[in-house]
Amino acid sequence: MDVDAYLAERAARIGPYLDGCVPPTDGEAAPLPEAMRHLLFPGGKRLRPAFAFAACEAVGGPTERALPIAAAVELIHTYSLVHDDLPCMDDDDERRGVPTVHKVFGEANAVLAGDALQTAAFETLARATEDATPDVRDALAGCMRDLARAAGAAGLVGGQVDDLVFADGDATAVTSIHARKTAALFEAATAGGARLGGAPADRVASLAAVGHQVGLAFQIVDDLLDHDDDDACSMLTVLGEAGARERAEGLLDDSLARLADLGEPAEPLRDLARLAVRRSL
Amino acid sequence: MDVDAYLAERAARIGPYLDGCVPPTDGEAAPLPEAMRHLLFPGGKRLRPAFAFAACEAVGGPTERALPIAAAVELIHTYSLVHDDLPCMDDDDERRGVPTVHKVFGEANAVLAGDALQTAAFETLARATEDATPDVRDALAGCMRDLARAAGAAGLVGGQVDDLVFADGDATAVTSIHARKTAALFEAATAGGARLGGAPADRVASLAAVGHQVGLAFQIVDDLLDHDDDDACSMLTVLGEAGARERAEGLLDDSLARLADLGEPAEPLRDLARLAVRRSL
Repeated sequence: MDVDAYLAERAARIGPYLDGCVPPTDGEAAPLPEAMRHLLFPGGKRLRPAFAFAACEAVGGPTERALPIAAAVELIHTYSLVHDDLPCMDDDDERRGVPTVHKVFGEANAVLAGDALQTAAFETLARATEDATPDVRDALAGCMRDLARAAGAAGLVGGQVDDLVFADGDATAVTSIHARKTAALFEAATAGGARLGGAPADRVASLAAVGHQVGLAFQIVDDLLDHDDDDACSMLTVLGEAGARERAEGLLDDSLARLADLGEPAEPLRDLARLAVRRSL
Repeated sequence: MDVDAYLAERAARIGPYLDGCVPPTDGEAAPLPEAMRHLLFPGGKRLRPAFAFAACEAVGGPTERALPIAAAVELIHTYSLVHDDLPCMDDDDERRGVPTVHKVFGEANAVLAGDALQTAAFETLARATEDATPDVRDALAGCMRDLARAAGAAGLVGGQVDDLVFADGDATAVTSIHARKTAALFEAATAGGARLGGAPADRVASLAAVGHQVGLAFQIVDDLLDHDDDDACSMLTVLGEAGARERAEGLLDDSLARLADLGEPAEPLRDLARLAVRRSL
């Protein structure tokens, strides 16, 4: 299977599962379900869930075991987009070719929809613990710790706060922000996939590192692809185009080296790492 | 111990624990830790945590076992206040005698601080699972399910969405909003306290119902104490003052009846229920 087909197949699996993680549109509290679903469906490439699936498979776990963490990282990612787009933040009118949530549903509902999407991420992991075997329950508890750390003040939110005021800095300062704003969630995806796939602690740590490095590289490439963006917090600004490309390739090489001993089952994860980093380099 | 002393003593216990649930002020991502701490310390009466402690004690559990859920409900409550105060929501300048978070730190930081406070609630429960015995781990998983349900689209956020557009309705419509906006979190506190205190499922359910009823009554009384508030979604508006008081007293009687067979260990919980409902009736 080529990597685009892999990504499309895994996206087709996570869609129906995500549908069950958010409220139906015929209940109370309209327009909350619609506002929560606006960016979630059809959504983007579902890259973070694909990393969770591929990490689970890389350690020999069945794909569907990774569904709770795959969905939870996508819900956190989507909530962060809804809040980042708000007028008081990046003030964006469009996202993925459609009007942003606050443009369609108003600012208050956009704040609340983002809030409820974050809750839904943790609810998805919490509900999966019901009827789970003790091993899976332990793995889910680990996923919750990972995800909370990735999403909160030490991760996504902290990175966003520092990004809002970033004026200039060196590669270390840029990496610190990218590590929290972008890489932390990729890390929670691969670590969680590995946990749910039944990996021992050292393998979970190594796959967490893969997610972290791929996430950093992904952000570098994102900045390279988005030239006219005047974002000061970019590796392009501090290293130049060639230096930034080299750094992204170095991160990719490191992460592929960590996967070398996993053989055939890790092939989709290697392919996803290459795809995330070489999108159009 | 009288109920005010009980409340003060339990507030003194939850404070230092909450301090460990949010980032220190000397780290990265300033002013995020300050913004997260602004309403959290010294905080209010810590009524929701007190209900968690008292429910744990009512079923024979040691007080400190309830710390994770006591802290988690307070973090969720605080995040909801920060977001409710935003200009696009209630647009409040003051809260508990100090300027609101967005007044001090700006709107973007207020959104992000609220976001990170929500994450911290789930992180607190998730971190408590480390080194926990299997029984406590199961109880914490139950707490997480309860709290996610109470906080999300089916609870707090959904209630807030409906409250924003509420124009008029009968007692059933008002109760539906209060059940989600206010009672759900009291319910998660008492159910979680009971779970962590080691109660069997039927007792957890009965203490959940106590929290729910006390929460509904608390909101009715809140509206009674706040006469000049032109909030349409108030039991005062639909039942009048005498009718609203009668309903609050009925809810209190029901919840005390549910606690009748628990004897002496449930005395603080009964006292708290009376305090929450009779504040100045």
